[in-house]
Amino acid sequence: MARMTSATPPANATLADLGEFGLVGALASRFPQGENVLLGPGDDAALVAVPDGRVVISTDLLVDTRHFRRDWASATEIGRKAAAQNLSDINAMGGRATALTVGLAAPPDLPVTWALELADGIAEEAALVGASVVGGDVTRADAVMIAVTVLGSVDGDPVRRSGARAGDLVALAGRQGWAAAGLAVLGRGFRSPRVLVEAHRRPDPPYAAGAQAAAAGATAMVDVSDGLLADVGHIADASGVAIDIAAGRFEIAEPLRAVGAALGADPLRFILTGGDDYALAATFPAGQEVPEGWSVIGDVREGSGVTVDGEAYEGPAGHRHF
Amino acid sequence: MARMTSATPPANATLADLGEFGLVGALASRFPQGENVLLGPGDDAALVAVPDGRVVISTDLLVDTRHFRRDWASATEIGRKAAAQNLSDINAMGGRATALTVGLAAPPDLPVTWALELADGIAEEAALVGASVVGGDVTRADAVMIAVTVLGSVDGDPVRRSGARAGDLVALAGRQGWAAAGLAVLGRGFRSPRVLVEAHRRPDPPYAAGAQAAAAGATAMVDVSDGLLADVGHIADASGVAIDIAAGRFEIAEPLRAVGAALGADPLRFILTGGDDYALAATFPAGQEVPEGWSVIGDVREGSGVTVDGEAYEGPAGHRHF
Repeated sequence: MARMTSATPPANATLADLGEFGLVGALASRFPQGENVLLGPGDDAALVAVPDGRVVISTDLLVDTRHFRRDWASATEIGRKAAAQNLSDINAMGGRATALTVGLAAPPDLPVTWALELADGIAEEAALVGASVVGGDVTRADAVMIAVTVLGSVDGDPVRRSGARAGDLVALAGRQGWAAAGLAVLGRGFRSPRVLVEAHRRPDPPYAAGAQAAAAGATAMVDVSDGLLADVGHIADASGVAIDIAAGRFEIAEPLRAVGAALGADPLRFILTGGDDYALAATFPAGQEVPEGWSVIGDVREGSGVTVDGEAYEGPAGHRHF
Repeated sequence: MARMTSATPPANATLADLGEFGLVGALASRFPQGENVLLGPGDDAALVAVPDGRVVISTDLLVDTRHFRRDWASATEIGRKAAAQNLSDINAMGGRATALTVGLAAPPDLPVTWALELADGIAEEAALVGASVVGGDVTRADAVMIAVTVLGSVDGDPVRRSGARAGDLVALAGRQGWAAAGLAVLGRGFRSPRVLVEAHRRPDPPYAAGAQAAAAGATAMVDVSDGLLADVGHIADASGVAIDIAAGRFEIAEPLRAVGAALGADPLRFILTGGDDYALAATFPAGQEVPEGWSVIGDVREGSGVTVDGEAYEGPAGHRHF
């Protein structure tokens, strides 16, 4: 990472006007540093305290028009989503995020204000879990791309995808299907129901639920980023089990019903195939209560694959990346 | 990161043929996992041991045609360079790299073999310092972009940019100017001197020199990625000092002389302004021997800015990113 300088960019400035070092300095000044940050942005690398001796790490790329649309969401919202997507990966291990790095590739005519608001969004979302942005990189590219890496801590063992056993319950924490319904609304050129459009623009992941599930003995866990059936499919595959989802277990929220009616779509489809809410899906040993905030949505069986009410679910089950 | 599966992609397959999960599985199988990796690729996050309780972290983006050219270097060479650039940041703190994550954005028609050879190059370079690739992400984009994040450990305090004091010596470790000379050669459509072309395609950073300098009491350090004068300028700025480089201190290697003569250029310019060799520049207290492998190239003075033989150096001093 290049050196940080304090900088107040002129209004309407572009990245080309500010230059790399000016941009890095302006970005770095948006990121408050937590107590675990021993050395923040501004040197060749940052230094972060890891008192428990193990670090959880995950990384994600977001590409303009593919993972976000600048005409559908503000820079702050895109920043929050970029951070949320990564923080959610730590949540899915039962951990707590502590530090992030952010890479921004962008064309030279990008307004500086867009980059700074992106940084604000990332910082706001990180603050929800007490994590700090400790470093990054900026470079020129034809399209905007955001690369986020997140570090975290976990008490005890991380909750993997491979621990589900036949007989376990499957449970869900957090809103699910709202972002997909919001995307469907935006795709038709509508702006309401507003609550769904906002759910698409800015997820609200259940950040407390991951560590809670780990403490309650969850046997496997994923975050729902590609689609509920696709992501519980990762648990089924990694654990060598089958998972059945009980459609009647879902309480279909009123906005989802409204959009389903307006678009002539089954609202359950948003729940079963939608991603981007960063809900958590986990398996728990049978016969125990799932933690508060979690709802049972199915069960683990012998076999392989994912079914809904015992049958294959028709339709696109997840996001195809190539 | 999506789930890992073992996969042998067909010859001539593209990323679109293999799909995201197939690609992730094929990539993950190229990355051997070291002893400090408690949980490698294949879950929502990886888990890395950090027994000394502090982690150094840095991140870099590489964009096709800007940081590498697929017609000028093989995928393996590009992978080695992508890793080297990041490992060098840990070197510049006096640390040892332990783990990397890799994000790859690429068009769907990219050959799978290119992506796998890129992974091989990253793994080979990481192996030079004993680091493991523990996770990553792949996504579709119009252009190839590589995002690397590296974690490392440091004994004692990291060597920052801000510790240089007037009177200190400035010293250099590693080849410097070779990559820039190789780039100049390629830019003219030549392929020799081969040693310089190869230096451009694959840097050979002095990975032992960083920890060596830290142990010897280096007061400030950077890696030379943007250009020697530009990067020692970061030390001067961060430390609030001036740095003077003594041109006569450099031994100008024969290939650099040959290229200078062939292109009608001063070979010293490659050394002073070239980046991408990932040499290290550091300051040491006066009156002590610099460690083996390091050469004194100048001294630290009161004031600000960087001079060569006491005068401003004309010409482009570094790489402009926007």
